Amino acid sequence: MDFKTDFKPLTVQPQEIEGKSFEMITEELGEHPFTDRQYPVVQRVIHASADFELGRSMVFHPDAIEAGIKAIRAGQPLVADVQMIQAGVSKDRLKRFGMDVNVYISDPDVMEEAKRLNTTRAIISMRKAIRQAEGGIYAIGNAPTALLELIRLVKSGEAKPGLIIGMPVGFVSAAESKDELRKLDIPFITNIGRKGGSTIVVAAVNALSLMAAREE
Amino acid sequence: MDFKTDFKPLTVQPQEIEGKSFEMITEELGEHPFTDRQYPVVQRVIHASADFELGRSMVFHPDAIEAGIKAIRAGQPLVADVQMIQAGVSKDRLKRFGMDVNVYISDPDVMEEAKRLNTTRAIISMRKAIRQAEGGIYAIGNAPTALLELIRLVKSGEAKPGLIIGMPVGFVSAAESKDELRKLDIPFITNIGRKGGSTIVVAAVNALSLMAAREE
Repeated sequence: MDFKTDFKPLTVQPQEIEGKSFEMITEELGEHPFTDRQYPVVQRVIHASADFELGRSMVFHPDAIEAGIKAIRAGQPLVADVQMIQAGVSKDRLKRFGMDVNVYISDPDVMEEAKRLNTTRAIISMRKAIRQAEGGIYAIGNAPTALLELIRLVKSGEAKPGLIIGMPVGFVSAAESKDELRKLDIPFITNIGRKGGSTIVVAAVNALSLMAAREE
Repeated sequence: MDFKTDFKPLTVQPQEIEGKSFEMITEELGEHPFTDRQYPVVQRVIHASADFELGRSMVFHPDAIEAGIKAIRAGQPLVADVQMIQAGVSKDRLKRFGMDVNVYISDPDVMEEAKRLNTTRAIISMRKAIRQAEGGIYAIGNAPTALLELIRLVKSGEAKPGLIIGMPVGFVSAAESKDELRKLDIPFITNIGRKGGSTIVVAAVNALSLMAAREE
């Protein structure tokens, strides 16, 4: 079909577009180091970014996929660092499992505490999150400081997330925060380098919730 | 500072992180083809993606920046194709200019009409948008069908957007939709290729609203 001369493709359904995209991704990616369980997450991340380099840079803790699916089936909460993730995840599907999606970064008590301690709202939002969402999935796509604080809380024994999806994007501390995450021996999904972001984290969450739904 | 041995950087303020990031981007990007007016948008897109290739692939209609700032100052609405963009833009800043942020894709009448016509909700949402937001800024980061429909409506004379920020991501029609956008002689901001997405479009909107606010 030629988009330059007519608009027939406009009647194509989103499901068809997604199926065709996924075929193209598998074909272009070729050989890769991911297991059959990890690949659906990588595929959806590439779908959301059109970035094979980013997809190839992903790293999974060996228990990550099963831990994520388990947390979803148990209806554990999803904690996100920013509202964009909350807006992007398939909330209807998560709700069917009883999952809430929580973002604390704009809560008045978080803003007040951050000001008082002269630190970032992202950091304080993680301190609030671990009191309210133990065992949940932590999805961080924006704030390296949130991920670094969560790692600190895991190391100190204060936090026990079911899964950390840590893929903040950026030039200051983003890559370093992910280097730290990869050293933890708890379930994580991350990537190497500066790239990442809310749409990437949303893709990973949606891939996991789809796996959880399909395997019921 | 060494993130591997201590967490002192956790007290760094977001403004400092952003400033440092912007310096790094300018240094690493080196020579580029963008004007002084276009560069803040490119810089913020690279900041949101850590992707210099994506930044370099951006294309601006000659009137794009001034048209965007004019629309913001006039308090024209922002129309987004998906909720993630609505969640990500600096709403407080837009509100100071009297700008609303509208997303029609989940409106019951849009969903019903899309079903009746066997087409995508994204397409119908654009048909609804042009009736409600003439002269507005159209920000499309996800659905190529939304962008293609908007282009069709501009060509037919039915739509007269103040600015189109069209950077949908994906494997089917995304690059083609942007090729079509670049042929229009109305203000647009776009890029060449498959990459893009909600976080990228949010970065462009936020760069423009910041320019509008700073130059008041």
